[in-house]
Amino acid sequence: MAAVIVHGGAYAIPDHLVSAKKSGVHTAATSAHKALIHGKTAIDAVEIAIRHLEDDPAFNAGHGGALNVQGEVELDAIIIDGKTLEFGSVAAVENISNPISLARMVMEKTDHVMLVGKGANIFAKEMGVAQVDAKELISDFSKEELARQSVYKHVVNDSFDNQLEHDTVGAVAIDIHGNMAAGTSTGGITAKRVGRVGDSPLVGSGASCDNEIGGTSCTGHGESIAKVTLASRVLTTLQKEGCSPEEACKRSLEYMKTKVSGFGGVIMVAADGTIAKAFSTKRMAWASVDKTGTVQCGIDP
Amino acid sequence: MAAVIVHGGAYAIPDHLVSAKKSGVHTAATSAHKALIHGKTAIDAVEIAIRHLEDDPAFNAGHGGALNVQGEVELDAIIIDGKTLEFGSVAAVENISNPISLARMVMEKTDHVMLVGKGANIFAKEMGVAQVDAKELISDFSKEELARQSVYKHVVNDSFDNQLEHDTVGAVAIDIHGNMAAGTSTGGITAKRVGRVGDSPLVGSGASCDNEIGGTSCTGHGESIAKVTLASRVLTTLQKEGCSPEEACKRSLEYMKTKVSGFGGVIMVAADGTIAKAFSTKRMAWASVDKTGTVQCGIDP
Repeated sequence: MAAVIVHGGAYAIPDHLVSAKKSGVHTAATSAHKALIHGKTAIDAVEIAIRHLEDDPAFNAGHGGALNVQGEVELDAIIIDGKTLEFGSVAAVENISNPISLARMVMEKTDHVMLVGKGANIFAKEMGVAQVDAKELISDFSKEELARQSVYKHVVNDSFDNQLEHDTVGAVAIDIHGNMAAGTSTGGITAKRVGRVGDSPLVGSGASCDNEIGGTSCTGHGESIAKVTLASRVLTTLQKEGCSPEEACKRSLEYMKTKVSGFGGVIMVAADGTIAKAFSTKRMAWASVDKTGTVQCGIDP
Repeated sequence: MAAVIVHGGAYAIPDHLVSAKKSGVHTAATSAHKALIHGKTAIDAVEIAIRHLEDDPAFNAGHGGALNVQGEVELDAIIIDGKTLEFGSVAAVENISNPISLARMVMEKTDHVMLVGKGANIFAKEMGVAQVDAKELISDFSKEELARQSVYKHVVNDSFDNQLEHDTVGAVAIDIHGNMAAGTSTGGITAKRVGRVGDSPLVGSGASCDNEIGGTSCTGHGESIAKVTLASRVLTTLQKEGCSPEEACKRSLEYMKTKVSGFGGVIMVAADGTIAKAFSTKRMAWASVDKTGTVQCGIDP
């Protein structure tokens, strides 16, 4: 019954990055699936998949995260347990490699659900999470991206018609016990203001998960996704409109386009283990291993 | 057609605070309503009501905000425009008096929707918002509360059966043009970790607003509210289940109690201007001015 789907960002991914993106999501999905069939939980699988993508500088999360206007990497992540609705989230955290694991610690080691800014870093230190030098998280690519753009407005308006890197990674899994988890991690958008938070670490926006319905992770223009709380909408649409998981993803993206002119992508696993995805951007890197063990991977519509 | 409802927190409010709480929410609601009938927008009205409550040390928002484990005031707020779904949000911001106004600036003066921690303070400075001394935001009451509690777990588990101050303020309005807005502001929960964010500044959790459905602001146990994205749920229930606004509030609170053992309160204005409220805590301070101009105010069930 175990199944997993991951994404590595939805935008007009340029041809020269296609190979690295596909390879990254493929490894993330198959690694997570291997863990699932060995009895690991959905939470474990989501963490494994996302850590892989955070460590891969081809993706805008962890190492390789987009730079803010001051040239700093500030990271956001969320992980949700579909059985209990417990979640952990961090935003604008600096100097750590794997915000998804810190988000999991917020969920499991505190009475809170979200820690931001310096508080997230104080907590990381308390948990013994290795502090990395800020420079270590910066990729050549992210420096080039920042240099290319001096004005955020330019980025945010152009970003879905052009090939600027600005995106997010995510994973959703169901384990052999039927429990589900979802997670999302990002470096945000290049040239963002200090402390900017998009949809990714916001419950119901960047991710949502409930064993009774399904789990989902979103990517794309963060501000638009948050305005329509896209992840909640995907689950509500599936539950209330009696449509297929893929149709729920499509209807939710269509709503976001109509209502706030926003573009993005969605991955989901429904409570019955059905895998689905949709994107309104030109491309979205994704890979999945379904209930039958079939591996799929793609980037074009 | 103009109408407004405000809340000043839902918990077991002790008798000696009842008078101050009722007086505060009454003034906030009537001030906001006066602005509405003079042609001010729903956004203006929500900001007016919440600024009043932030400035009143009887409420846990702005001046009088709860202290974190380090004895600091860190403030969270959100404001949402129901016409465009645009919103602005700040979290863990320090040294300012009115986070609701900073949240509005995020909405109106940036391409972002949320700024947290030091980034929110950098933005406040850029906007010329007066920086106040950290001590100025601390009330005698909030110091006593922190002294009374050394362990957060104690607070979070006990807080809805006892009389510890830990709550939030909010407002929802519809203006003479039929546009709606909702907002929420809080100091969080006493003895919280540094950087802790509850539901209040999270879109779909602490507040939600859409001219086509209605607007809502939540209060209560922040972690529980976020787990069930309570504000989104109230609007979805109203839209999809064909019930009354009050019933939508009640069903959503019942769901939160059943699903994550959480307690709280909800205020709402439906798209037709109907005002509603509900709470599962012992008390919630609230006041409203409905479509006919009738002023109401209460604190008991």
